[in-house]
Amino acid sequence: MEPEQVPPAPRRPRTEARDLERYAALFAARTRQMRSSAMRNMMSIATRPEVISLAGGLPDTSTFPADLFEEIAAGIAADGLAGALQYGPTEGLDGLREAIPEVMAREGTGAEPEDVTVTTGGQQALDLVTRALVDPGDVLLCDAPTYPGALPTFAAYQADVIQVECDSEGMRTDLLEQTLTELEAGGKRPKFIYSVPTFQNPGGITLSLERRRQMVEIARRFEILVVEDNPYGLLRFEGDPLPSLYSIDGGGFVVYVGTFSKIVAAGLRLGWVVAPPPVRQKIVLGKQAADLCTSNLVQEFALRFLQSGRFDEYVDGLREVYRSRRDAMLGAIAEYFPHGADWSRPEGGLFVWATLPEVIDTGDLLAKALGENVAFVPGAEAFVDGRGTNSMRLNFSGVPEERIIEGVRRIGRLADRMLGLYETIANTAELPLPGGPVEKERRKAG
Amino acid sequence: MEPEQVPPAPRRPRTEARDLERYAALFAARTRQMRSSAMRNMMSIATRPEVISLAGGLPDTSTFPADLFEEIAAGIAADGLAGALQYGPTEGLDGLREAIPEVMAREGTGAEPEDVTVTTGGQQALDLVTRALVDPGDVLLCDAPTYPGALPTFAAYQADVIQVECDSEGMRTDLLEQTLTELEAGGKRPKFIYSVPTFQNPGGITLSLERRRQMVEIARRFEILVVEDNPYGLLRFEGDPLPSLYSIDGGGFVVYVGTFSKIVAAGLRLGWVVAPPPVRQKIVLGKQAADLCTSNLVQEFALRFLQSGRFDEYVDGLREVYRSRRDAMLGAIAEYFPHGADWSRPEGGLFVWATLPEVIDTGDLLAKALGENVAFVPGAEAFVDGRGTNSMRLNFSGVPEERIIEGVRRIGRLADRMLGLYETIANTAELPLPGGPVEKERRKAG
Repeated sequence: MEPEQVPPAPRRPRTEARDLERYAALFAARTRQMRSSAMRNMMSIATRPEVISLAGGLPDTSTFPADLFEEIAAGIAADGLAGALQYGPTEGLDGLREAIPEVMAREGTGAEPEDVTVTTGGQQALDLVTRALVDPGDVLLCDAPTYPGALPTFAAYQADVIQVECDSEGMRTDLLEQTLTELEAGGKRPKFIYSVPTFQNPGGITLSLERRRQMVEIARRFEILVVEDNPYGLLRFEGDPLPSLYSIDGGGFVVYVGTFSKIVAAGLRLGWVVAPPPVRQKIVLGKQAADLCTSNLVQEFALRFLQSGRFDEYVDGLREVYRSRRDAMLGAIAEYFPHGADWSRPEGGLFVWATLPEVIDTGDLLAKALGENVAFVPGAEAFVDGRGTNSMRLNFSGVPEERIIEGVRRIGRLADRMLGLYETIANTAELPLPGGPVEKERRKAG
Repeated sequence: MEPEQVPPAPRRPRTEARDLERYAALFAARTRQMRSSAMRNMMSIATRPEVISLAGGLPDTSTFPADLFEEIAAGIAADGLAGALQYGPTEGLDGLREAIPEVMAREGTGAEPEDVTVTTGGQQALDLVTRALVDPGDVLLCDAPTYPGALPTFAAYQADVIQVECDSEGMRTDLLEQTLTELEAGGKRPKFIYSVPTFQNPGGITLSLERRRQMVEIARRFEILVVEDNPYGLLRFEGDPLPSLYSIDGGGFVVYVGTFSKIVAAGLRLGWVVAPPPVRQKIVLGKQAADLCTSNLVQEFALRFLQSGRFDEYVDGLREVYRSRRDAMLGAIAEYFPHGADWSRPEGGLFVWATLPEVIDTGDLLAKALGENVAFVPGAEAFVDGRGTNSMRLNFSGVPEERIIEGVRRIGRLADRMLGLYETIANTAELPLPGGPVEKERRKAG
């Protein structure tokens, strides 16, 4: 090969406005609904070392044992390299498909290896389920608030997303039933209910046992699927585990999505979906088209980690780290957030959801917070309908305790200032304050 | 956590016909176009050790140096583990985005790192480009025959695929122009032309320089994009490299798709797409929804491999191995395939495309071949319009020479038998043979 024989490559000409218009006519209609989530856009800012990022859903990866990583790599090099570097079956490697139900069994959920499809992270599982089920305009139901990263996926398939209010026990099944009844009266049958029932992203709340039974019963009655997304179930700090929707249902109407992102490593991009055979077949066909198969190397790595006997110990360690960080965050919020704020007390997972007095727009607050090197996810990202403007998602898994406390302190101070400013304006203009006058007094609990 | 407190998980009830019907009503319209390609379905058979699989597009992974693999893993463990196990930016790691243009430069193609998006294999690049550009019913143009794995992707977005005939110089640009003119007269503007111009999958042919210039000129004139898929360009065994469509165009109307699957390892699932900024932005938004980001671990691995100084040596080695295997395959085809067969003589890449006398249906031949533990891809897989029924794609990269020869010998023997049987029936029934009587005499060239 003699590259010098090839004519020199011309540089790309600068894109002109005219070109942009040309391209615009080529884009699919779905791209008009595609918006970059603030969460992802902030990644570039949030990865700067000086920023205290409470924004991402980043697990802590600093405790992964380097010796075990090397040991696994040496094992692959010694006896599985050619296979790890090769294409694999679209469904995933058999060994990993057999090991995944053993992971699920740790939460008491039974699953059959043949119903498991390995995916490129839990995110791809959501994408493939939506691809298999949703035509443009189809209705989906989900939590209000919902996982912000699911909304771009639903938008990519032009779904009509309806959010069902959550309280401290998770999605309100009375409202779910009412919504489904109304939709049915209008001749609409939603394709699925999407929910994160355990240590919900973003709410930090957990669907109660009673509601779990109701949700499954409602799904069966209306003959629609539930997509149960369970990334955090093994990260319980206290209280008793609840049965998954999948195990209550037995897998007839519930599609289960799991991931290694929060219990092994997000950088693997390794998740899975368990679905009844007719749905699974469509998911596998969709995956063929999407990326052929998930990395064998990454699958081998996860499998050997699970087989190493050190998985439970590693998850135990994460649980300890996250429990302390949650406690630090809850303490700091109680100390530094203004009076009138409310927040969840998660029994596990990665997130606290905090709601400030209504006059505070958390989008504005974020802009100010970034100026002081703190990031969080504004609540509006978790809704399609404009709600959540005075709420925020705060992540405690990816940041050491002293930085959590400092980050929350800065956010609280900024919120105070905004409230003070609003009070001054309101007093001057004699405007009534929504929700009554803001008291400057802070709760000192902690 | 006490799993014993959780009620025992009920087993999934067997799916009944009634359930299947229930699910059927939930599927998206696109799933009606989804079909499992024979190529993928055969993976399960083709991976059995007794099968000589000329079916997959499997690279040879046996020569990857285990010492280098361990060295890279040790490097990651020592100084990059937490990052490799973490989420990364959707666009890909900066270091890898900078290294990819250096890989492209080896074929004389210039590209800017900021135009590069790292993808989960080249397949995901195709999926994301189609997601960004194609609405249901939109027209796409592609080679006839085309990469079989692209068709399920185009079907997933319900594209209307029109294939433009290829000859020994690649896609016939006169027919391309004619098709575009006819579509324009009918008020239709295709979204893009998809082509594998170099060592085409499945044809093994290469688009000539003259045709490359014409294709770019036509795309510009009709203001549509060309998606240039170039997985094999660095695997040239002989002859002079040709400039990529991307470098001829300068990146205004050509979207370039590359992959590490054939030059590093398919098991990484690591590819990339280079696109002008407006298109790139839509691709990145689509990737966020599809899988958030590509595995940092895999990206780190590839980057450290590229930086090891052993990449060119490795590709040189692959080129040597594949050249010998190609020669073995061409020799065996010349010796064993029946008179009336024709086939491509690729100057690089992974595939030979062979066409048998018209009376042979290669779908039937495949069924017989699997019975004798040989697999290939029947030609119909490379068309949407029923063509290719007497052709086949034969892979020479993934199988040692003696097995290539044996596999081709078995296929040739089966084809001979089918031709003999057809002759007998034709003689008995006094039916005219399409294409004239089949001569039993074989070419003995080799």
